[in-house]
Amino acid sequence: MQFAKGKLIAIGGAEDKGTDLEKGEIQRNNLNFFGLGILRRIVEEAGGPLSRIEVITTASTIPYEVGDNYLNAFGKIGCTDIGLLHIRNRADTANAEYLERISTCDIVMFSGGNQLRLTSTFGGTVFFQKILDRYRSEEGFIIAGTSAGAMAMSNTMIYEGNATRAHLKGEVKITTGLAFMNDVIFDSHFEKRGRFGRLAQAVASNPACIGIGLGEDTGMLITNGDKMEAIGSGLVMIIDGHDILHSNIADIPDGNPISIQNLKVHFCEHGNGYLLKERIFLMSARENAVIKKQLDVE
Amino acid sequence: MQFAKGKLIAIGGAEDKGTDLEKGEIQRNNLNFFGLGILRRIVEEAGGPLSRIEVITTASTIPYEVGDNYLNAFGKIGCTDIGLLHIRNRADTANAEYLERISTCDIVMFSGGNQLRLTSTFGGTVFFQKILDRYRSEEGFIIAGTSAGAMAMSNTMIYEGNATRAHLKGEVKITTGLAFMNDVIFDSHFEKRGRFGRLAQAVASNPACIGIGLGEDTGMLITNGDKMEAIGSGLVMIIDGHDILHSNIADIPDGNPISIQNLKVHFCEHGNGYLLKERIFLMSARENAVIKKQLDVE
Repeated sequence: MQFAKGKLIAIGGAEDKGTDLEKGEIQRNNLNFFGLGILRRIVEEAGGPLSRIEVITTASTIPYEVGDNYLNAFGKIGCTDIGLLHIRNRADTANAEYLERISTCDIVMFSGGNQLRLTSTFGGTVFFQKILDRYRSEEGFIIAGTSAGAMAMSNTMIYEGNATRAHLKGEVKITTGLAFMNDVIFDSHFEKRGRFGRLAQAVASNPACIGIGLGEDTGMLITNGDKMEAIGSGLVMIIDGHDILHSNIADIPDGNPISIQNLKVHFCEHGNGYLLKERIFLMSARENAVIKKQLDVE
Repeated sequence: MQFAKGKLIAIGGAEDKGTDLEKGEIQRNNLNFFGLGILRRIVEEAGGPLSRIEVITTASTIPYEVGDNYLNAFGKIGCTDIGLLHIRNRADTANAEYLERISTCDIVMFSGGNQLRLTSTFGGTVFFQKILDRYRSEEGFIIAGTSAGAMAMSNTMIYEGNATRAHLKGEVKITTGLAFMNDVIFDSHFEKRGRFGRLAQAVASNPACIGIGLGEDTGMLITNGDKMEAIGSGLVMIIDGHDILHSNIADIPDGNPISIQNLKVHFCEHGNGYLLKERIFLMSARENAVIKKQLDVE
């Protein structure tokens, strides 16, 4: 596949009041919002505050509150050309006005909520194909997503998995995501909800996929579908299973604990990065400068 | 993505004594074998019985029995150049002799067994990349797989799911497959094990994927990653969710029954086909001839 020309920005969400289907109920104040720093970076990548932004609130059960929140936040950083796409079902996706808007905006922002709502609503629609085509062919076209909006970005999508039981086989629920990229699995609210086990299980089941655990108020800016740069205030954890020598995942029945030998894990903070195809961790410019200084002294 | 130049042959298995992790135990006589008709077609597609065949028994817990079974069966149709690759773990995949053999054979045949064993063993390995590269670039290169070997062929892979509970959300377990193709989900032993519910659930969660339910002793020959032709004695069921108007899958908690409005289903018997991208059912030459005759009479 050719590299996509657009950019993805996958964000781990922020408010720990979210979707939380894993707690068995849909909570009401699922804004999954994050700091202005990340929003500023999104807008900057698209060329500045004159960019036209479309916020897709489909994942959320409280789309109007979520939409207003984005209007305010993007407004605070000087954006004035912001549309809200309150698409609630597959029929809505065929709306000619929506198709027109999605064909002309500079940034598509998927809100948090429930990632299954994104895939079951958009999967296989003309509306979605339009976004995908623009992402693949247009430089400067930005797709951002937080929480559910980030988790749906890859072909492999975790949609559920109780963190406290995620070390047990079968506790992680996966289906097909929106597939802006392959070969990765995004998880969100990563440290706060203790999701290492579930992402590791997903990676062990097919080590071709790199796990990307996004902390809250933290994201990965992805260029060429390959080069990742951590942004925001927290941590992104990378789980690489390519060197796994042994795991019992194919041998045990559901509900049993998984063993894995030799997972490779990286912690990326702001400025660190990762090359997906080469599986190389990138230090920040600051870290590189420190090393250079040490070498100069020696 | 460019169309792959090789061909895939996905077969639904045959012996109903298989993997059956869904029954909570690994049974011993998992040969998942099928009729000589399909084997003949595999060999024919590769250019005839002089083709070099490598059988990968990794999915099975009884690889030597499964391997012998294939030696006998391919032998009966006149093949003499048959290798068995009893790869048991990730370290085995780096064996230089195996890499050489996989680089020079004409047909790779994945046996039945447990599809998680295929993905957890081969995912992200050089051995697997070699097969994938050959499939993408070489005309006449054939990858066949039965049961587990078929289910692992797409990016989206069902690895478990109790048929009697598959109408309940969360009962279908999915992870990342070997990804020779995207946008489909294969299921095997389809009618015999009553798997319509689980495949429909997988399709509803992201209608971008077409469900391909392979009956026993039945397969799909896939050309250009797109054109499918049913082969063998049974039925292949196609489940297309693109026209779904409503489903509750994003709204209900785990364990609740799923509602889906407007699934499209096709039954393909020997000679029928399906174009994946265009989502068009193809009649057989015989059926076309009957219609032509009727038109001639009118």
